[in-house]
Parts: sequence; C-alpha cells; structure tokens
Amino acid sequence: MTKQITLAELAGYLGAELRGDGSLMVSGVNTLKEATAAEISFLANPSYRKQLTDTRAAAVIISPDLAEEVPSAALILANPYLAFARVTQLFDNRPVTPAGIHPSAVVAATADIGQNVRIGANAVIGDNSHIGDGCEIGAGSVISEHCVLGKDCILNANVTLYHDVVLGERVRIHSGAVIGADGFGFAPDKGYWHKIAQLGGVRIGDDVEVGANTCIDRGALGNTVIGNNVILDNQIQIAHNVKIGDGTAIAACAGIAGSTTIGKHCTIAGSAGIAGHLTLCDGVHVAAMALISKSITVPGAYSSATVQMPMKEWRRNAVRFRQLDSMAKRLQQLEKSQEGDA
Amino acid sequence: MTKQITLAELAGYLGAELRGDGSLMVSGVNTLKEATAAEISFLANPSYRKQLTDTRAAAVIISPDLAEEVPSAALILANPYLAFARVTQLFDNRPVTPAGIHPSAVVAATADIGQNVRIGANAVIGDNSHIGDGCEIGAGSVISEHCVLGKDCILNANVTLYHDVVLGERVRIHSGAVIGADGFGFAPDKGYWHKIAQLGGVRIGDDVEVGANTCIDRGALGNTVIGNNVILDNQIQIAHNVKIGDGTAIAACAGIAGSTTIGKHCTIAGSAGIAGHLTLCDGVHVAAMALISKSITVPGAYSSATVQMPMKEWRRNAVRFRQLDSMAKRLQQLEKSQEGDA
Amino acid sequence: MTKQITLAELAGYLGAELRGDGSLMVSGVNTLKEATAAEISFLANPSYRKQLTDTRAAAVIISPDLAEEVPSAALILANPYLAFARVTQLFDNRPVTPAGIHPSAVVAATADIGQNVRIGANAVIGDNSHIGDGCEIGAGSVISEHCVLGKDCILNANVTLYHDVVLGERVRIHSGAVIGADGFGFAPDKGYWHKIAQLGGVRIGDDVEVGANTCIDRGALGNTVIGNNVILDNQIQIAHNVKIGDGTAIAACAGIAGSTTIGKHCTIAGSAGIAGHLTLCDGVHVAAMALISKSITVPGAYSSATVQMPMKEWRRNAVRFRQLDSMAKRLQQLEKSQEGDA
Repeated sequence: MTKQITLAELAGYLGAELRGDGSLMVSGVNTLKEATAAEISFLANPSYRKQLTDTRAAAVIISPDLAEEVPSAALILANPYLAFARVTQLFDNRPVTPAGIHPSAVVAATADIGQNVRIGANAVIGDNSHIGDGCEIGAGSVISEHCVLGKDCILNANVTLYHDVVLGERVRIHSGAVIGADGFGFAPDKGYWHKIAQLGGVRIGDDVEVGANTCIDRGALGNTVIGNNVILDNQIQIAHNVKIGDGTAIAACAGIAGSTTIGKHCTIAGSAGIAGHLTLCDGVHVAAMALISKSITVPGAYSSATVQMPMKEWRRNAVRFRQLDSMAKRLQQLEKSQEGDA
Repeated sequence: MTKQITLAELAGYLGAELRGDGSLMVSGVNTLKEATAAEISFLANPSYRKQLTDTRAAAVIISPDLAEEVPSAALILANPYLAFARVTQLFDNRPVTPAGIHPSAVVAATADIGQNVRIGANAVIGDNSHIGDGCEIGAGSVISEHCVLGKDCILNANVTLYHDVVLGERVRIHSGAVIGADGFGFAPDKGYWHKIAQLGGVRIGDDVEVGANTCIDRGALGNTVIGNNVILDNQIQIAHNVKIGDGTAIAACAGIAGSTTIGKHCTIAGSAGIAGHLTLCDGVHVAAMALISKSITVPGAYSSATVQMPMKEWRRNAVRFRQLDSMAKRLQQLEKSQEGDA
Repeated sequence: MTKQITLAELAGYLGAELRGDGSLMVSGVNTLKEATAAEISFLANPSYRKQLTDTRAAAVIISPDLAEEVPSAALILANPYLAFARVTQLFDNRPVTPAGIHPSAVVAATADIGQNVRIGANAVIGDNSHIGDGCEIGAGSVISEHCVLGKDCILNANVTLYHDVVLGERVRIHSGAVIGADGFGFAPDKGYWHKIAQLGGVRIGDDVEVGANTCIDRGALGNTVIGNNVILDNQIQIAHNVKIGDGTAIAACAGIAGSTTIGKHCTIAGSAGIAGHLTLCDGVHVAAMALISKSITVPGAYSSATVQMPMKEWRRNAVRFRQLDSMAKRLQQLEKSQEGDA
C-alpha cells in the first residue's frame, strides 16, 4: 500500500534537475539523519550541511550551490524546503473520510451539499448551509445554519462552526476548533453584566489553516475577518471583530483581543498577547510571550518578554524590578551631583 | 424575515425619551460609522462623539447631555451602552435549536427533561440528570450523569459536562467548553505520580457565561464554585476548588490555579495567570498577562507584565534584567561613597 | 448506594497500622476541617497540624511521628498523601460508561475491539484501530484509523484521536483533548505558506494523563513522544516532534514548541512557554509563566516572570525597563569616574 515513486518522476513533479539514477524508487521522505535507502531527504537549513556526508537517503533535494556535496543522487532546485513540502504531500498518509454522507450524519433538508462531498459519522449540517464541492467534514463536526464552505475545505473531527461563518476555498480546520462563538461583549449596569448579542459573523479567506482548539469569535457588529493564506496554530484566541491580513502566521496559544487589526505577512510567536483596539502594520514580527499593548506602525520585530534565569538569581533580580523607578531616579541624582562636582 | 421595529416601539422597550419621528422603522443596529438609514446606532464612548455629525443612522441612542448633537432622531436615556445591549437582543439572529428532542439524541431513561426543552442532533444526556424548563442543548453536546441545569440554560454545540455539575438559571456555555473534568491532583511516591480521584463537583450560579473551549475542573474534595453573573471568555482554565465571586469578569486565555478564591466584581484581563491557594479580595483588577503569585487584600489594579520594545532595543534591555540585583547594589555603593565624600 | 468501609478494612487496603476501633464505618474522605464523623481525613502537609485538634473525622491518616496528636482513631503509615490518593480511588463516584458498545456508536468493521470494552453513545472508531481490553471510550469521542489503545485506557466524552496515535496502558484523556492533529509546518515561498504534510504520529506511554482541551500534535517526520507516567493538565499545547521524559508533570496552559526535548521528572508550571528545538535535561523545574528560550543542562528551578505590583507603581517601573541598558551603562560610567576620583 506504500506509495512508490521514481526519482525521475519526482524530478518531474518538482521541476528539479536530477543528478543520478532516475529509475531509483523511493517510498518516503525523512531527515538526512533518519532517512533509509528507500527514502528521499532534503537540505534546507545550512546548519545540517555536515549531515550530508553520512546520509543513507536515496537522494537529497538541494540547492544548486550545495549540490556538489551530495554523496548520492540529487534533485536540484532553488527552494529545497518548498520542494520538501511538496514531497510530503505525495507521501501523506492521512485517511480521507469515506465518500458520500455517512448514514449517521444529520444533514438538514435545506442544506446545499456540493459534488464529491465527504461527511463523516455523526456530523451535523444545519439549515441553509452550503458545503462546496470536494469538502470533507469530519466525524462529530457540527456546522450550524447559514454557513458557506468554499471548495475543498477540510474540517477534521469535532469541529464546530456557529451560524453565518463563511470559509473560502481549501480552508483546513483542526479538531476542537470553534469558529463563530459569541464575542465577549457585556454592558455593565449597577454591578451587573448585560449580554450584548453578537450580531456579526466570521469571514475566512482561501488557503487558511486553523489549528486544533483554536477559537475565532463572531463579530459584535460586522464580521471578524481572516485574510487569505493566514495560518493559525493550536489554541489561539481570536476575539470579535479582529481583522488579520493575508499571509500572517500565528503560533500556538497566542491571543488577539477584540477589534484589533493585524497587517499582512506578520508573524506572531507562541503565547504572545495583543491587546484590543490596536493596529499592527504589515510585516510586524512579535516574539514569544510578548505583550503588545500599543499599536505598531513600523515593520520589524518586537518583544516584551523577560529572559530565563536560575530561580535563585531570579528571586534577587525580580524583586528589584519593583525598585526600577527608584533606581533610575537615584542614578539621575548621582549624575547630577557628579556634574555639580565637576 | 428581517425584524422591523418603529422608533416609538424601541423607545417604549428601552424606557427612553424619543425625539423625532416615532413611526420611523429600523431593522438593525450598527456603529455610528457603519449604520445605514434603516439602522439605529448609539453613542456610549465620548471619543466617538465626532462621528455624530456624519452618521446616516435613523436614530441614535444617547445620554441627555449629548442629545443636542444628534442630527437625526434620538432615543435619550442615562446608560446608552446598556440600551445598546438590550437592542442587540432584539435583533439577535442566532438560530434556535428546533423544539423537542432530535431523534438522533441519546437521552437516558432516568433523565428528567423539563418543559420546552430543545435538544439537538446527537446530543447525549446521562442518567439522573435534570434539564430545566426552556433549556437548549446544542448538537453533539454531552451531559453526563447527575447534572442539574436550571431554567433557560443554553449549551451550544459540542459542550461537555462531566457528572455532578450543577448550573443555575440562564447559564450560557459555548462550544468546546468542558465543565467538571478532573482537577490536576497526583501524589508523588518514589518518582511516580499516583492519581487522586477528584470527588467534588462544580457549582455554577445564575446568569453565567462560559466561553468557547474554557475548562472548569471539578473539585478534589468539595466543589469548584462560580458565583452569579460571572462572565468567562474563551480558553480560560479554572482549576479544582477555585471559587469566583459574583459579577467577576475574566478575559480569554487567563488561568486560575487550584484552590484560589477570587472576590466579587473583579476583572482579570487576557492571558493573566493567578497562582494556586491565593485569595484576591473584591474589586481587584488584574492586567493582561500579569502573573499574580501573592494574595491581594487591597482592591485596585495590579500588573506584572513588561512593555513592548523593538527587538534590538529589547535584546539590550532584557539581558540587563539579569543584572538588576547587581546594579541595585552598585548604586547603593555609589550613594554611600558619595555620602562619605560629603 | 454510598460505599461504606470499616477502618480495619481500610488499614488492610493501605497497609497502615490501625490505632482505634477497627469496626468503625466510614463512607467518604475529606479535609480535617470539613470531615464529618462518617469520613476519614489525612494530614500530609504539616501546616495543617493545628487542625488535628478540632477535626470531627472518624479517623486520620498520618505519619508515625505525628500519630500521638490525633484525637480520634489513626491509620499510621509513611506517606499519608499517597494513602489519601489511594483512598480517593475507593470513594470515586465517577460514572462508568455502560458495558458494551452503545447502539449509536459507529465502529468500523475492521476495528479490533478487546474484551470488556465500553463505548459510549455516538462515539466513532475508525478502520484498523485496536481498542485494548478494558478500555472506556466516552460519548462523542472520535478515534480515527490505525490507532492503538493499550489496556484500560479511559477516553472521556468528546476526545479526538487522529490516525496513527498509539497509547500505552491506563492512559486517561479528558474531554476536548486532541491528539495527533497536524503540527504547524509550512514552507514559505514568494510570500505564500505551503503546507508540509505531517507524516509522523504520536506515541504515548503507560499511566499518562492528558487534561481537558490539551493538544498533542503529530510529528512532521517521526513521532511526537510522551513518556510513561507523564501527567498533563488542561489546555496544554505540545507541538510536533516534542519528546517528554518519564514522570514529567506539566501544569495548565503551558506550551512546548516544536522539536523540543524535555527530560525525565521535570515540572513545568502553569502558562510557561518553552521555545522550539531546545533540550531540557532531567530534573528541571520551570516556574509559572516563565519563558524558556535556551536549552538547560543543569537540573534545578528556572524562571523569567516578573512580580506583581499595584498598577500605579507598575507604570513607573515598567517604563524604566526600556531604559535598563542605558541605566547600566550610566552606572558603569559613574563607577569609572569615581575610580578616577579615588
């Protein structure tokens, strides 16, 4: 059952220059260190260059400048990491939900199901929702009413879409993700919180990935908007009316508070927090566990985190953090009196 | 199908003074900037006051002091933001689970189902659980045994309640939330963790909101307790035996460790962390990403986070954080020798 | 229906020395403060020693050195906290999924189901998966294809396992947990993210606990590996190809980025973040909300967090954090000129 492919076929698929025996057959892809003689490998990060010598891989995907160093066959092209990504697609062993609608699935009579749609066991599709051609809806997933899924979307098992969630094409959503839950809006009155019904929806572009247990809330008024090719890792929180520009990548456990706009091609590292009602321009890179509480208008990298220390050292330093302002003032005082001396 | 209502009816509903044509019909609510001539808007935050001039809204909900500035009809009352919240309820388009019990739902014979309960497709209700009148249980939700839901609770799709979880009235729980999972309790012995069965339950008051993918663990001995009108955003972690006072609001991604008690009318901002076995008095406000590791006895705002910087600047400063204690001592030394000089 | 047991039986079960009336019947376990005369209690933490005087407990589990102070019957042994853990198991009231396969469950014809397996309502078991003897699969849980569950695993309701996830024996997984979702791997090319199919799986040892809504991603190439007796709290993120050593405990909301290896018997406190491609040796203890961005080779405790302050004080200090480097340099300058003076 394992997929087998010749190096010549792979070279054709990738548009790579082949050096070596094109009839060699490979059945998998692996790291330089772990690859067997039946697998292909790749060198994308120059720091692994030394591993070329000892690799047992049948062939190595590599850039032209390093091709000389490959001891085996080589597939030569400009972006080996992209080629690796494309090769993983060939060897993907993900089981596909069986064709058709599982008899245990509950599909509303008014739902509009496209061609070649796969709907898993116990999935639920609500009234007036449209499931585009080629979509795959995992077991136990629930799609509420008035949703639209573009072509070739994949919802893994146990995904939840509330009503009025619109996905572009080729959107992939992992298990436990919740799209379109209520934003966190309440009006206080005499010590009591009164709920603000969240009347907006969610709009997601094409080629978007949403990680496991990630939440994207519906808008309060107007929509929460995720651009094209935005990639979201697991356990991310996207609050109501956030807007995220095309090509932005967000790592796990990050949180974006309400009504914040993030530009295109930004990267937000893990566990970072972005406060509400901010604007981050295109090309901003936020470091892990950084807290961003002011808008950013200049592209570049930002952080606010503190660095690790042994606990004993940390205890002494952390307590001084509370004295920083006093220290700064006393330093100024000393500088002044020194000036006076001079 | 769109709801339509006259300004006169709205004024009656809100108890507002109407200025303008009461027969005007509105079919929605929106911001001053986005509202069309068929929508009502509101001014709650004075910083949007300038937008009054250009709004196309049919009418504006506003406080008496600013009513003069409204170019259109006005609905005048003391708390426009609360009035806005009440208007959103009128225009809420959330689809309601159809009446009755969906044939695919699995309801235990010993479960006690109230009047006008709506149970969605593939939902599961365990033995001896009581579902109060008017409750709505979303598709795929699982309620284990010996749970009690007060009147008019809403569980969205794919919510999980473990056994012995008791909800008050009008509790709303969003998808992916897990109430009553085991607290994290283990006894170490010879390098091995031995599980402590979590024997308590969860008690939740009236008018509580629980966000998507939020977890509230059951107590180890005795219950985890959430007071009335507590509002919890998404992806919050509430550990075993935590107690949260009435009217407290917690934003997304915050975590409260075991056996901590949080007072009434506190606010905990996003990604904040509260250590275990602490007590926070009433009226404490914790800033985003703050770490609270000592009890708080004085109401007010607290933080511990650090501020954002460009990465280059951050690198220089962050490394100095490790030298803070040394800097403080050297500063004292200089001050002493200066004193000696004087 | 309540379980009742005599002190003599309890002493036998625990291997404890009994002092007092062995025929006394107890029906529960509680804290020294809350225990009734029908319950047993325990003293594990010396700081509760004063509560011995007033406890109404039928008996107290206690270490030999403090046994004299118990006013009631006593069960005497070396590790009272471990004994408490074992007693909670006796009184555990967790409802067990009914025996057999619920008629609404969807079990693939090629799935291999062991003896005494309990499968709840609407659960789904995929092709070629093996469910070991004595396993319990909660309602709504989805197990994809080619998974292996060792003996006596417990999946609570609404758990999701992707394909090629292998669990050891006695693994317990809480609701909302997602095991085996895609790792976050993408190759950039001309401003576009290209997905890297995640070809590895997940391997989990024996006696592991996985908390509610925790995610453990599948490997990109090769597996993500969780050792024996690893205990994971709620809402934890374990990225692709992470390896966690035996006996390590991780508290809620922590995140471990890709390809990081964590040693044996480590503890990672709540909301901590561990960057990718690091190695932490055995016996490392990471404090709450610490960010670990460098490998650790020396066992011990590490932190990076900052301490809480009233907001007013914080504002003054936090802004100085941006001036730290400048302060350090000015301090050096003063020291130099003082030297010059001397």
